[in-house]
Amino acid sequence: LYFLSDPELMDSIPQAYLSHKEKYEQAVRKACWLFKKVTLLRDKGGDLEIFRQTLSGMLGSAILKDGNPLTLHYVMFLPTIVGQGTVEQQAEWMGRAWNCDIIGTYAQTELGHGTFIRGLETTAHYDSKAQEFVLNSPTLTSYKWWPGGLGQTANYAIVVAQLHTKGVCHGIHPFIVQLRDEETHKPLSGIKIGEIGTKLGMNATNNGYLGFDNVRIPREHMLMKNAQVLEDGTYVKSPSDKLTYGTMMFVRVILLHDMAGYLSKATTIAIRYSAVRRQSEMKPGEPEPQIMDYMTQQYKLFPNLATCFALRFNANWLWNMYNSVTAELEEGDLDRLPELHALSCCLKAVCTADAAHGVEILRLACGGHGYMTSSSLPSIYGLVTAASTYEGENTVMLLQTARYLVKAWQQAVGGMVLTPTVAYLKDALTQSNTPRHWENSLPCIIKAFQQVAAGKIKMCSENMDRRIQGGFSPEDAWNMTSIELAQCAEAHARAIIIDKFAESVAELTVSAVLKTVLTQLCELYGVYWLLQRAGDFLMYSHVSARDITGLQQWMEQLLSQIRPNAVGIVDGFDICDEILSSALGSYDGRVYERLFEEAAKSPLNKEPVNISFQKYLKPFLKSNL
Amino acid sequence: LYFLSDPELMDSIPQAYLSHKEKYEQAVRKACWLFKKVTLLRDKGGDLEIFRQTLSGMLGSAILKDGNPLTLHYVMFLPTIVGQGTVEQQAEWMGRAWNCDIIGTYAQTELGHGTFIRGLETTAHYDSKAQEFVLNSPTLTSYKWWPGGLGQTANYAIVVAQLHTKGVCHGIHPFIVQLRDEETHKPLSGIKIGEIGTKLGMNATNNGYLGFDNVRIPREHMLMKNAQVLEDGTYVKSPSDKLTYGTMMFVRVILLHDMAGYLSKATTIAIRYSAVRRQSEMKPGEPEPQIMDYMTQQYKLFPNLATCFALRFNANWLWNMYNSVTAELEEGDLDRLPELHALSCCLKAVCTADAAHGVEILRLACGGHGYMTSSSLPSIYGLVTAASTYEGENTVMLLQTARYLVKAWQQAVGGMVLTPTVAYLKDALTQSNTPRHWENSLPCIIKAFQQVAAGKIKMCSENMDRRIQGGFSPEDAWNMTSIELAQCAEAHARAIIIDKFAESVAELTVSAVLKTVLTQLCELYGVYWLLQRAGDFLMYSHVSARDITGLQQWMEQLLSQIRPNAVGIVDGFDICDEILSSALGSYDGRVYERLFEEAAKSPLNKEPVNISFQKYLKPFLKSNL
Repeated sequence: LYFLSDPELMDSIPQAYLSHKEKYEQAVRKACWLFKKVTLLRDKGGDLEIFRQTLSGMLGSAILKDGNPLTLHYVMFLPTIVGQGTVEQQAEWMGRAWNCDIIGTYAQTELGHGTFIRGLETTAHYDSKAQEFVLNSPTLTSYKWWPGGLGQTANYAIVVAQLHTKGVCHGIHPFIVQLRDEETHKPLSGIKIGEIGTKLGMNATNNGYLGFDNVRIPREHMLMKNAQVLEDGTYVKSPSDKLTYGTMMFVRVILLHDMAGYLSKATTIAIRYSAVRRQSEMKPGEPEPQIMDYMTQQYKLFPNLATCFALRFNANWLWNMYNSVTAELEEGDLDRLPELHALSCCLKAVCTADAAHGVEILRLACGGHGYMTSSSLPSIYGLVTAASTYEGENTVMLLQTARYLVKAWQQAVGGMVLTPTVAYLKDALTQSNTPRHWENSLPCIIKAFQQVAAGKIKMCSENMDRRIQGGFSPEDAWNMTSIELAQCAEAHARAIIIDKFAESVAELTVSAVLKTVLTQLCELYGVYWLLQRAGDFLMYSHVSARDITGLQQWMEQLLSQIRPNAVGIVDGFDICDEILSSALGSYDGRVYERLFEEAAKSPLNKEPVNISFQKYLKPFLKSNL
Repeated sequence: LYFLSDPELMDSIPQAYLSHKEKYEQAVRKACWLFKKVTLLRDKGGDLEIFRQTLSGMLGSAILKDGNPLTLHYVMFLPTIVGQGTVEQQAEWMGRAWNCDIIGTYAQTELGHGTFIRGLETTAHYDSKAQEFVLNSPTLTSYKWWPGGLGQTANYAIVVAQLHTKGVCHGIHPFIVQLRDEETHKPLSGIKIGEIGTKLGMNATNNGYLGFDNVRIPREHMLMKNAQVLEDGTYVKSPSDKLTYGTMMFVRVILLHDMAGYLSKATTIAIRYSAVRRQSEMKPGEPEPQIMDYMTQQYKLFPNLATCFALRFNANWLWNMYNSVTAELEEGDLDRLPELHALSCCLKAVCTADAAHGVEILRLACGGHGYMTSSSLPSIYGLVTAASTYEGENTVMLLQTARYLVKAWQQAVGGMVLTPTVAYLKDALTQSNTPRHWENSLPCIIKAFQQVAAGKIKMCSENMDRRIQGGFSPEDAWNMTSIELAQCAEAHARAIIIDKFAESVAELTVSAVLKTVLTQLCELYGVYWLLQRAGDFLMYSHVSARDITGLQQWMEQLLSQIRPNAVGIVDGFDICDEILSSALGSYDGRVYERLFEEAAKSPLNKEPVNISFQKYLKPFLKSNL
């Protein structure tokens, strides 16, 4: 509340009413004020957690609802210098960056290439005479496109470019490039820069484009912690090319936390609104029931409530795994890196997709009012749906995991030891021998999810083999099987998510009542997805058609059991009204009053007759007399 | 092009960059100009089709991308006077309305009630002494909320209110109410009016709110074609309360056409972009393939291409049925009204949901660039997703159809004659006797869809009966079964859609080549949805687990077969660049050039240094030195 009650950080006119340019100017104003406050706190000895909250957590998105043009300075520019700069480079740049003498961004994605980073086209040619790199954008598609803060805000950037030295291309490497004059902020010579225009959401992030026309930077501006270019142009390779994976995985782990947060906001809004909104007659003559009493509404709300916990527990679990794997990395042990990578890919894809789909279901569950900006649901969707694309496009992510799974299957068939998260494949090899058994229980459900994942991996491997034997190249066979491969990575992710959800709930030391509620939510998550994918379970697991009928009834029971606790659970998320910032979701339930209060803020409502009446409408009406 | 090339109707600055107020003012300017041109055309003897195109078709949404504040005048105000006014009332109002001496809107939905119109709270009390109605908004939730053009544009409205006369409430009726002075445009006394604020999309429609404080209107302002209030306050009932269904069904039929149009736009954009965009390496050393060559991409694109045709053919079929049923209505034959109503409900729900989901899949298939306003995909989504809520919330619509289906099932069990679109229920009663048979063919698929729909209707009816016999009231049993009931209405809709799709293609007199392509698309639609709902087909149809494997392969084959024709098919939609208005989807494929051209239009790019640098950023940077 130190931030949320600061008048400088509140909007007199909600930003949705402003022009694009005004939105940006207000965002710069607020971002500067915010980080000044944060810096003051830090200097008073506050911990760095406040930076994390401001940048990626709920707090930041509450104050700068439509994005923050300074985010990448903290989230990408600073960490890249730390992670990829030499000690000397850190000494040179960190002080200035940390004190915000300069503002940086991270320019990797280009107009023509995103997820496939090997395809980037920006070039950095080493000129050994001048001991400088010469940066160029040889094609239109090689222009940097998307980096946040790049348009009008940053004066420096980490630029990822193809390194050429002594006539050889050594692949992509990071360089520090000054973009604008530190005093006048004018773009430097050879720098073509601007913003990319309006988007579905995040319109204050100032995403920009950037082109180079023979821009020269000193040799020392290449970040050389890993690979190096010596004065004479000799290229020294990085000791391991896997070390750069770290940052990517780190960002994906953080992403899961963000998704859990956004979905929790949307769930809180929709559940509270469903307790206030009354509609229709369930029984003739009786008062209109709360819409949450309709089972079709519960079916929209509660599986998403369960997903909030599924995301949160899995984000925590992956975070712990990430930390232990990076600790092993420091000691030179790379063994678990591929497993972590495979997990981070499929969980990124499934969790971002589920969160986005969930937010839309919740928005639609609020009817017309969910379509209003003042519900906050449209802007939450704008933030969440972007995550399906950035940090690795979801389908590409799933196929990366699939590659790992197909290998793991070959290892399983070959009798080799499997890493923990794919150990279930062992069971699948002997599955046909175990007797069929089903009861409505979490262990049975988890087992069935693993059977489905294993069955699909097996089937994909067989389809690949069949196609290769039929004369197709391995690459063609892969492409032809890729729809099923992506689905098998999703099945693997679901098996992980439900397993870790159940495990986390079991390990919690909380009251018996709370544990019961969390177990119901975990069961609901499992049954819901089992029924969503009933075909898979009928084909690949022990579940029979009769079991499906029983599972449907179990799901309906779970919805009824969760109903009385639903409002209490979202209250437990403890998201304050200032952060929710939703007319539909406030704690006091004053939905209709707040919708009016928000409408009153529209500049169109400040005057009884808009100027367009005199200018356009009246002449039009009278012209027909 | 008469309209599209008119400089008055083009934006110098794309509207996405304007403030909310400017968007509205520009929309009024363009709407007035547009309808002036249309009126001139009409006076020159042009046909009325041009009105339809301007109002709901592609043309209108190309010129007024974010909605049109005058739409409801033509689409609802005028037709309601025609449909519900007496001959005298038509004589009094139609001339002035048709000539745009007055601008009207249609105010039905309130803050507290939408789809459930019986719950509306606005009151119209008849005062027989003054021979006037007195309109009031007794509660906050009784305020009208949502009507387009209501905020600052219209000076008249049809207001739907609960009619009270002689102390008795007779339910909702329509009244003509003047809102603003015709000369000054100031709100009249007792009228509380304004706009409701920004939304996910359609921000230029000027959706408004409206409250009444003892507003008096003459008795003659109640539209009395059906029910009447006599001078002394005597209420004369309408001869049939089913007559008001007509308009609702008409709007839903039109909606299907709109959905087909919007989805065709999105599909054109995504398919053309997928032919231009190249990414990654399929085989080492080979050039980057068009992303449309990836099967996972085809899987996102082509089912939606098939859906474009499914929507179009079904919209045409429903339109014909609507016309023949209304023709029968004129002759007093109401027999087919319930069937038409049930169809319009479930098709509305399924088609709007499919279109919205499809647009999102297509947007995501365009990666980051699909997130940009200049792709046009975000605004198409904004228009399409709204249709899941307006004109009857989708879940409510599905449950209305379900009620019809449960009745039909009882008729089938009772051996009664069934209406044509549910005649397949007959087969289900004898289904267990027919031998299992499957081949990959359209007739088999259609049959299977019908088996699933019938099986689900049967199962729902049995679950209802079981619950009623278990002591629950019919209403509670209905609510407890409603998740499955909604799904069974969806299954019915799919059975209809695939059947009418196949039937329409078979009846077309086109070249053999085109017929083959359309048949492939129809098959793809069927196989795709069968696999999406594989669990249902394994449980309720003749499809076996082995068949599923074969169907998956068939689908993959179909995708490959459609691939070479995909661009040609969307070119055949013949949506000109001005209407598509997408940097990604233009006919010439200049994707990257257009993205730049659109970015250049951003006001932020008009000056090298934004004012926020001097005002906020520079002091922030320097403060830390």
